[in-house]
Amino acid sequence: MNVSVRGHTQHHRTVAFDRTHNTVLLVEQRLLPHEFRIVTTEDFRATAGAIRDMVVRGAPAIAATAAYGLAQGALAFAGQDRVKFRRHLELVYQTLKAARPTAVDPVNAMNRVRAVMRTGKTIQEQQLLALAAAEEFAGESVRHCEAIGRYGARLIRSGMTILTHCNAGWLACVDIGTATAPLYAAQAQGKKFHVFCDETRPRSQGATLTAWELAQQKISHQVIADNAAGHLMQRGEIDLVIVGSDRTLGHTGEVANKIGTYTKAVLAKRHDIPFYVAIPLSTIDWKLKRGFDIPIEERHESEVLGAWGTISASQSAIPNQQSARRVYVRVANPTSGARNPGFDVTPPDLITGIITPAGIFKPKELWARRHKLDFAD
Amino acid sequence: MNVSVRGHTQHHRTVAFDRTHNTVLLVEQRLLPHEFRIVTTEDFRATAGAIRDMVVRGAPAIAATAAYGLAQGALAFAGQDRVKFRRHLELVYQTLKAARPTAVDPVNAMNRVRAVMRTGKTIQEQQLLALAAAEEFAGESVRHCEAIGRYGARLIRSGMTILTHCNAGWLACVDIGTATAPLYAAQAQGKKFHVFCDETRPRSQGATLTAWELAQQKISHQVIADNAAGHLMQRGEIDLVIVGSDRTLGHTGEVANKIGTYTKAVLAKRHDIPFYVAIPLSTIDWKLKRGFDIPIEERHESEVLGAWGTISASQSAIPNQQSARRVYVRVANPTSGARNPGFDVTPPDLITGIITPAGIFKPKELWARRHKLDFAD
Repeated sequence: MNVSVRGHTQHHRTVAFDRTHNTVLLVEQRLLPHEFRIVTTEDFRATAGAIRDMVVRGAPAIAATAAYGLAQGALAFAGQDRVKFRRHLELVYQTLKAARPTAVDPVNAMNRVRAVMRTGKTIQEQQLLALAAAEEFAGESVRHCEAIGRYGARLIRSGMTILTHCNAGWLACVDIGTATAPLYAAQAQGKKFHVFCDETRPRSQGATLTAWELAQQKISHQVIADNAAGHLMQRGEIDLVIVGSDRTLGHTGEVANKIGTYTKAVLAKRHDIPFYVAIPLSTIDWKLKRGFDIPIEERHESEVLGAWGTISASQSAIPNQQSARRVYVRVANPTSGARNPGFDVTPPDLITGIITPAGIFKPKELWARRHKLDFAD
Repeated sequence: MNVSVRGHTQHHRTVAFDRTHNTVLLVEQRLLPHEFRIVTTEDFRATAGAIRDMVVRGAPAIAATAAYGLAQGALAFAGQDRVKFRRHLELVYQTLKAARPTAVDPVNAMNRVRAVMRTGKTIQEQQLLALAAAEEFAGESVRHCEAIGRYGARLIRSGMTILTHCNAGWLACVDIGTATAPLYAAQAQGKKFHVFCDETRPRSQGATLTAWELAQQKISHQVIADNAAGHLMQRGEIDLVIVGSDRTLGHTGEVANKIGTYTKAVLAKRHDIPFYVAIPLSTIDWKLKRGFDIPIEERHESEVLGAWGTISASQSAIPNQQSARRVYVRVANPTSGARNPGFDVTPPDLITGIITPAGIFKPKELWARRHKLDFAD
């Protein structure tokens, strides 16, 4: 997407590959929204490190990063010893896999790259096929987001106000995003609308990442406290809700997403406001049969008990400090603890539709359409 | 309530009066939860300043502070000139009134003190009556909170988990609090329960003030993000919700309270969880006929775009700094704005009952009981 850097508009993907230097290019997400920087990983170990240290986050984005990392590792091999090449590839694969051990998307992406590589005869052929497969994986991710945008934009009319939660934007994907894709597509069609970004405590991805994305694309928006959406719906100020999903059950149409998504769905239902979930196909879980069985990660209480932000130079008390500094502040009572469930599960009766790259479906229709929607095929 | 100060338990009211020195004693709330301190205002101007600068906040607490401030001003008058006394009193009244111009509670409280004063013949008699009336006002506020606690405690059984929102605690009253009163009363009866404190963004009064209060009283509790209650209700982890109210309409039973209250009421209804509102009588509005007409204060966007907290000595980079420092950090994208409605309105169909000093009533019963509930009488 377009980014304004020192007054100039540049186009960047979240994840890209430089063939000349055999490097992966990543938007350094830990500095956002306060600084935009592209970092370059020189070898597969550095690429794995970027995944591990959350330079890049979001399932589609880390999947593409792992695919490129595998190609990068393959291309770095010099020599004609097939056994050594195979061993080297296995090391690259395991290193990238270990970078985010619970994520399934990077493994799926690398398996696709490996399957394509196997059709090559020579080491050199396999190296080129690895890169082609990684590029194809990233390109497909972009085309899927474009398709989500095309379908989702039909829901948006000029004059609407749209609520978002968390960040399922281009920063979480190779480009464009999932929940944000309909916004960008509608804007490209000349539609004028306003977006409320839920702050999304405790990690505030709505206030930081989504608000930053929309500001870059010059989409009218405001941040709201997570407490405010109910009131705004009650006063008729919200027309449509679009959120992303971390896991959607193909059997039931239940949607696991960032904590607070369920609350917004309950509120939308009460006010007869359409509630849509935009998903990449890779997040559909065709195995699990009950949303209640989705493991809900309990995250560290420090996220709830405080906040990360920048402190202005005037407050920071460092002599001659020029720019804002990023710090953690303790907000809550120092002697209190917290509960911090990271995700919640929204049942299908609260979901108007699921926006996929293959069209918009009712949650209960997913299973019948599984042959069209199965990403692994 | 009891406060643990350097290992010693002390009893303090939020607002108290020192007859010997003619001073008002206030819990300095701007330092909480990080420091507990009692401040003393030496004259009525300082007392008005404490109201204006939010050393003290919460409708019942500022009402009692204004009542004491009026008595303090009256007692400071020396001489026998009745005209000068009347002029002086008017100055005191207007100074205290101007400290928080939109609040109605301090004015009502001072009017009650003035009405009692008028029954005195000499200046000295009137001075003593002013103090007696202010003490009576504060004492009645405490008795009302005790009564709320007595009625509300009947709703609490051992083993329950109770959700609170914002702070309608003893820090907002002379003592005990409204929404917290049932908790303290149930604890005194030996009941064991757990409390989830909604963080209550954007000003985080739940994470700071309510969590601090409960920690002082050794009530088991945890802070949760405002996003988390829906998930916890869905998993059966919340049995009861008790919140406070800034204004309750006697005609309709609609409740205006801190932003996010309405959302919790909608969630409670979906999960068949009892939702109670605890109110001091002074917050019942017998005139307004529609909740939609309650003016909703739109507060400054900086509250949503950042957070106040303490920065640890190690992060703060001030040489030799010993203790944590309170700072504002910008959380949101620097180029984004915010909407910040401060309150919302919960309709009566979502409210199981309203806990008053005169008993627990259905929202729609208030009007029929108005002779029992009218505070101004």
